Amino acid sequence: MTTSADKLIETTQALLWERGYVGTSPRAIQDMAGVGQGSMYHHFRGKAALALAAEERSSAELLEEVRHLLEAPGDPLDRVVGYLRLERDILKGCRVGRLAADPEVVADPALRKPVADTFAQIGERLASLLAEAQAAGRLRAGLDARALAATVLAVRQGGYVLARAADSVVPYGQAVDGLIALLTGNDTK
Amino acid sequence: MTTSADKLIETTQALLWERGYVGTSPRAIQDMAGVGQGSMYHHFRGKAALALAAEERSSAELLEEVRHLLEAPGDPLDRVVGYLRLERDILKGCRVGRLAADPEVVADPALRKPVADTFAQIGERLASLLAEAQAAGRLRAGLDARALAATVLAVRQGGYVLARAADSVVPYGQAVDGLIALLTGNDTK
Repeated sequence: MTTSADKLIETTQALLWERGYVGTSPRAIQDMAGVGQGSMYHHFRGKAALALAAEERSSAELLEEVRHLLEAPGDPLDRVVGYLRLERDILKGCRVGRLAADPEVVADPALRKPVADTFAQIGERLASLLAEAQAAGRLRAGLDARALAATVLAVRQGGYVLARAADSVVPYGQAVDGLIALLTGNDTK
Repeated sequence: MTTSADKLIETTQALLWERGYVGTSPRAIQDMAGVGQGSMYHHFRGKAALALAAEERSSAELLEEVRHLLEAPGDPLDRVVGYLRLERDILKGCRVGRLAADPEVVADPALRKPVADTFAQIGERLASLLAEAQAAGRLRAGLDARALAATVLAVRQGGYVLARAADSVVPYGQAVDGLIALLTGNDTK
C-alpha cells in the first residue's frame, strides 16, 4: 500500500472515531492527511470506499486486541471479566460501536457490515467462554450463554454512552462492576 | 410558545434523533419545519440554542414516560424489569443517549447537561428500586445498588448500539434477557 493511501486510511479511522461518518467530509480527511484531492480519488472511489477501508482496519485492530485477551489460557469466566475490564480510552468511546449511531452507516449494508461482524465475532467468542464457565460449574447452567454474551457486549457499549454523557469514567466503571458482581457472585460492597 | 418556535423545536428533536447534532444543519431544520431563516433567528440565537430547547424537551418527554413506569405501585424488582423491557423503536435508538456519540454535544457543557441529567435522574430512581428489592430480600444484599443501576442503564443503551449494528432487534432482546436472568435468578433456557 502506498504511503498516501495508508495515511488517508489512518486519518479516516481517526475522524470516524471522533466525528462519525456524517460528520467527516472528504475535505477534512484531505486536510488532516496532507493529501490532495487528486491523490485521494486516485486511491479511493470516494468517501464511502475510503470509510469502508478505515472501518475494516479499525475492526481488524479491535478484534486482534480482544482475541488476544479472550483466547489467553486460564479460567473462562476470568477471561470474560478481563474483557469487561479492558479499558481503552473510555471517554473516546468504541471506535467501531460509535458508528452504529451514524444514520448513513446503518442505512448502507456495506458500511454497516464491519460493525455488525465485529460484534458478531466477539459475541460468539464470549458465548463460548460463558458456556465453558457453565460446564465448569462457575456460572449458573440455566442461563442462555448467547444472551449473556450480548449483555456483556451491551454493558461495554452502553458504559461508553453513560461515560461520555457524564464526561466521567465513573458510570462506565459502575456498569461493568455491577455486571461482574452478578456474573461472579462476588459482593461489591 | 408560538407555532413557529414549537415547530422548530419538534423538527430539531426529530433531526437530532436521526442525524445527531453534527449532522443537523440550520438549513435542514428550516426546510423540514417549513420556517424561514428570519423566523428561526427571531426565536433562537442559533443552532445551539435551538438544539438545547429540543434536547430539554426530549429529556422531559423521556423522563415522563419512564417515571410513570418506575413510580408505579408493585414489586420494585418487577419495575426495574419493566423498565428494561420498555420497548420503544429499538432500531431508532435512544433519542437522548444517541447525543453522547456527538463530539460537539459532549464538548459543550450546556448541550451535554440534558443528556447527563436524564441518565442521572433515571439512574437514581433505579438505584432506589434496586435497594428496595434488596431490603425485601428479592436481590442479593451484597451488591452495590448504584453500580447495578448503571448496569441497567448501560444494557439498554448498549442494546441499541448492538441492534443498530445488526439491523435487528434480536441482540437488544438478548442483552436485556441476559441481565434480567442475572437479576431475578430465573433461568432463561
